[in-house]
Amino acid sequence: MDVADPLRHFRARFNLPEDLIYLDGNSLGPLPSDTPQIIANAVSRQWGHSLIKSWNDHNWIGAPQRIGNKIGALIGAGLDEVVVADSTSINLYKLILAAARLNANGTEILTEAGNFPTDIYIADGAARTLGLNLRLAESNALSEAITEQTALVVLTHVNYRSGYRHDIAALTRLAASKKVPIIWDLSHSVGAVPLNLRQDGAELAVGCGYKHLNGGPGAPAFLYVSGALQATIASPIAGWLGHAAPFDFTDEYRPAPGIAKFLAGTPPILSLLALEAGVDLMLEVDRPALYAKSAALFDLFAALVSAQCPALNLASPQDPARRSGHIAFAHESAYAIVQALIARGVIGDFRTPDIARFGITPLYTSFEDVWHSVQILGEIMTTGVWRNAEFSKRRMVT
Amino acid sequence: MDVADPLRHFRARFNLPEDLIYLDGNSLGPLPSDTPQIIANAVSRQWGHSLIKSWNDHNWIGAPQRIGNKIGALIGAGLDEVVVADSTSINLYKLILAAARLNANGTEILTEAGNFPTDIYIADGAARTLGLNLRLAESNALSEAITEQTALVVLTHVNYRSGYRHDIAALTRLAASKKVPIIWDLSHSVGAVPLNLRQDGAELAVGCGYKHLNGGPGAPAFLYVSGALQATIASPIAGWLGHAAPFDFTDEYRPAPGIAKFLAGTPPILSLLALEAGVDLMLEVDRPALYAKSAALFDLFAALVSAQCPALNLASPQDPARRSGHIAFAHESAYAIVQALIARGVIGDFRTPDIARFGITPLYTSFEDVWHSVQILGEIMTTGVWRNAEFSKRRMVT
Repeated sequence: MDVADPLRHFRARFNLPEDLIYLDGNSLGPLPSDTPQIIANAVSRQWGHSLIKSWNDHNWIGAPQRIGNKIGALIGAGLDEVVVADSTSINLYKLILAAARLNANGTEILTEAGNFPTDIYIADGAARTLGLNLRLAESNALSEAITEQTALVVLTHVNYRSGYRHDIAALTRLAASKKVPIIWDLSHSVGAVPLNLRQDGAELAVGCGYKHLNGGPGAPAFLYVSGALQATIASPIAGWLGHAAPFDFTDEYRPAPGIAKFLAGTPPILSLLALEAGVDLMLEVDRPALYAKSAALFDLFAALVSAQCPALNLASPQDPARRSGHIAFAHESAYAIVQALIARGVIGDFRTPDIARFGITPLYTSFEDVWHSVQILGEIMTTGVWRNAEFSKRRMVT
Repeated sequence: MDVADPLRHFRARFNLPEDLIYLDGNSLGPLPSDTPQIIANAVSRQWGHSLIKSWNDHNWIGAPQRIGNKIGALIGAGLDEVVVADSTSINLYKLILAAARLNANGTEILTEAGNFPTDIYIADGAARTLGLNLRLAESNALSEAITEQTALVVLTHVNYRSGYRHDIAALTRLAASKKVPIIWDLSHSVGAVPLNLRQDGAELAVGCGYKHLNGGPGAPAFLYVSGALQATIASPIAGWLGHAAPFDFTDEYRPAPGIAKFLAGTPPILSLLALEAGVDLMLEVDRPALYAKSAALFDLFAALVSAQCPALNLASPQDPARRSGHIAFAHESAYAIVQALIARGVIGDFRTPDIARFGITPLYTSFEDVWHSVQILGEIMTTGVWRNAEFSKRRMVT
């Protein structure tokens, strides 16, 4: 399978340690080989030598829109529909406040129980600010929960635990029939599963840069507002870089045309340029081949675990259209099992209460990696080595 | 004067180009010599080699509070009163929404006409969200404008154009007598002028990391909430890293104790670690010596310009207690004059409509630098070379 893999040469484009199998790209993507030099240049030549002139000479000022357009190409957005800014949490807050009054009959913000926590917390805080209620619907009751009284729906496209992937087109159609906008969080989708926001009718989205985009720890996030909606809504956080002419330094706020009005403060340039390197690499990839390999890695992983680790229950969907770029298994001792795996050089992660989660990212994960990982997992399960006390010790970040 | 300067050895701690005099540290501080290695290590060893484990093993997770406490030491805050997060604009928005209801009689947010634009824009947007009015008072009518109906005052400690420095203690006392909180923006103060927030009774502040802290382009910002006020107010942007136990991944938001509840999303680690390097360098400096040299550089600059460039009018205060870390001169052709200076290797900047602004940062600016700069400025004024058309061409970022 590896010999026939059209993406196999991309593994050499990452600096991956020799002694481990990294199945945690869905939490923090690894370091692209080009990035150290790009950052060293940004530090020493741009900041160190060109100093303040770099805002013009190295076009730092244009980076949020330039990188935004590159991400736009990955998610099926048009030009000037995506901008890089702030964190996913902040961007979500901005879009909730911006869009919460589009449905004049809306009284509540709807989200999904078990959504990524920050999405729920942000929606909750924003609802308080707006005087709206927050409603959490169970996943199987989500469609019915969208009513004419829903002000806004906040959904994560791919669930961070199970990897369940919502149908953006179908839910968008359903919500639109009741005049309800949806904000999609694409953090676990972008770079992992096909995205066609325009084609699917999506109007609003946010997402992070540090998972499948390999943009570095805490890489800046992005936001998407469809061109059609841009004129209608405004950012509640009216920062200077979202001004039509920031360097006029006027007391009056005049929003920039287009997506730039959702910029707020000065962006962290070093982290932004690291993100760009990850996005540029992703743009080189044939995306149908990427998604096909992702599906094949998933199938292999699921089949091997089913055969060799019967105590682990697949917690991800079987349906390829509802799966994504990571695979999850449930076990009551998932935490200790993941620690035992890490001790053997296979990096996955644990998600409370009982999920062992593995990113199977086609750019650098080989079929052999999956085979070896499940062999080791099988040994851990068979020997029961995960019962050793050392593997139950909780770390700060799990 | 340089021979007698106790800070003269700090110049070697920066990578400054040989061929220029950099008087723009108040816009973007230069590159500390230690930073390239720290960032290379963060990229290649921490991200590249330790990957996701760095959140624990290299304590990325603790960076916002660790660096916050270091900045706290620079501004006279106590432990756990400062955290690094987001941008100044975002932090200001968070504190405005958090504090706007502390004065139950308040109907308007008050700020100063000519305040840094993003502060005005953010206050305006926040006021709209809150259903409050925004009032801009002229600088000379500011004290009288603070009344029992003021919900909140938003002020920048040091004016970005003139360098005028407000009296934090006096204004805080005045406002407190009417039960009105003040949020101080310290962007042009921190690392440049003495700050004693606790001693001065200040309760709320924000500031940026990329000016006198030398934290790199768009370095993350910080926010301060006095310990006494922390229990009373909450962040409107309730992100997961402000949760008491983010890795419990619960649907219910429970704010972290202390200042950490003002964190929102995942921070940009590379930019954060660059900021830390700048802050660490600043912590090595004897601050009374820093402020004394700053005053001496100002005096020399003002005296030389007064003698050699009579067409330039000092736009900064004469009173040392009201001055700060930059000096400003007014001239109707300030833009072209600054461009002509840049062409001669002296980097200052222009601020609309008529200000030539020079950062005189004691860590790496020598008295000789000031002397040479004013010689060149004098030649430019005498020859009128700034009238050449090339110097009027506007750049994107001024």
